[in-house]
Amino acid sequence: MNIKVIAFDADDTLWVNEPYFRASEEKFCALMAEYASERDLERELLKVEIANLGLYGYGIKGFILSMMEAALHISGGTINAACVQEILSLGRQMLNQPIELLDGVKDVLEALKPKYRLVVATKGDLLDQERKLKKSGLTDYFHHVEVMSEKDEPNYLKLLKHLDIQPEEFLMIGNSLKSDVLPVLNIGSHAIHVPFHITWAHEQIEHSVDNERFRNIEGIREVLSML
Amino acid sequence: MNIKVIAFDADDTLWVNEPYFRASEEKFCALMAEYASERDLERELLKVEIANLGLYGYGIKGFILSMMEAALHISGGTINAACVQEILSLGRQMLNQPIELLDGVKDVLEALKPKYRLVVATKGDLLDQERKLKKSGLTDYFHHVEVMSEKDEPNYLKLLKHLDIQPEEFLMIGNSLKSDVLPVLNIGSHAIHVPFHITWAHEQIEHSVDNERFRNIEGIREVLSML
Repeated sequence: MNIKVIAFDADDTLWVNEPYFRASEEKFCALMAEYASERDLERELLKVEIANLGLYGYGIKGFILSMMEAALHISGGTINAACVQEILSLGRQMLNQPIELLDGVKDVLEALKPKYRLVVATKGDLLDQERKLKKSGLTDYFHHVEVMSEKDEPNYLKLLKHLDIQPEEFLMIGNSLKSDVLPVLNIGSHAIHVPFHITWAHEQIEHSVDNERFRNIEGIREVLSML
Repeated sequence: MNIKVIAFDADDTLWVNEPYFRASEEKFCALMAEYASERDLERELLKVEIANLGLYGYGIKGFILSMMEAALHISGGTINAACVQEILSLGRQMLNQPIELLDGVKDVLEALKPKYRLVVATKGDLLDQERKLKKSGLTDYFHHVEVMSEKDEPNYLKLLKHLDIQPEEFLMIGNSLKSDVLPVLNIGSHAIHVPFHITWAHEQIEHSVDNERFRNIEGIREVLSML
């Protein structure tokens, strides 16, 4: 391997993210408990979220707008202003959430920084991802931060062009097989999967990956013994 | 002048944008007419929008969330579900708005493309700006699209670094003195101001610019006679 650039996914790879979405979903279900079961509420919310991804993209603002839409739909157009207020507040809380780094992240970045160009490759709201990186205290480890509207092959190829490197010189590390691994392997680059204990339903895929440019590890510290 | 890269602002420089926000504001005022005068409603909405800029950033999703918050506040927490639904619909309409290119844009890009590297430098929602560029049919004119969370000096310097050029080799063309001209002149680059007939209150500044690296023009076609 002749890796020149290592890209890290951000949410649930560098820091905790999905649990905050889950906590907000739980609060949403509590708020709407009179209308449906938790299971049905979760299913309806996910349906609205996925239907809106093309329009809103990833990130907290789209999530809140989808919650609002789901609440209107589930309540049959009867939700009151207090409920709307509560959903807006959930969004503000999420945007103001402190950053909790995942175990080992800092040590790994510290060890890799002298030997590789490190970048962040993430999707979501531009401003929110920039703010989280700033709050994380990790900014100085990274040469570049790429916020992508979708982590697909064309956007990874654009990133390689921007970084001025060949596919085989690029390694992506992240928690999503769908976003951080498969498209990266498809363009001829390397990928390491570090699973996080929970994954958003939309990112879950049933897929076993067998590729010599792929590794699955348990925790991010294992990266160091592989490079 | 030894310009190598010309960056264009997008909204209200390449295509119509602000009038759609104004139209939504008008619909918002009509929706809330029972609670306050149009003048007070507009003032309250702008206040909420500006207070939320740090949290939500620029773009339609933040605008809709701010409308929702303003509606709750103005109504004293009494707005009904139909009103919330209407505000969500305004957002969807805005996101699905067709693109109307401004007069002369295509001719100017066509003439400049062989001689300069052209880029788009815009702020707002990443996905929304990418979608608008795609709908505009202008994608092939541009070497790079930079969506910035804020158009300030540090972000312009990052863009220059990315483009691998010196400040004096960069020219920014846009309709906002605040975002497209002043920070660009401050870092030693060139700027051309093409005013649009309406400007969002938050972008308006009382400022006369006197700088040899600055030009004010009436319409974008005039760029051609200056380069």
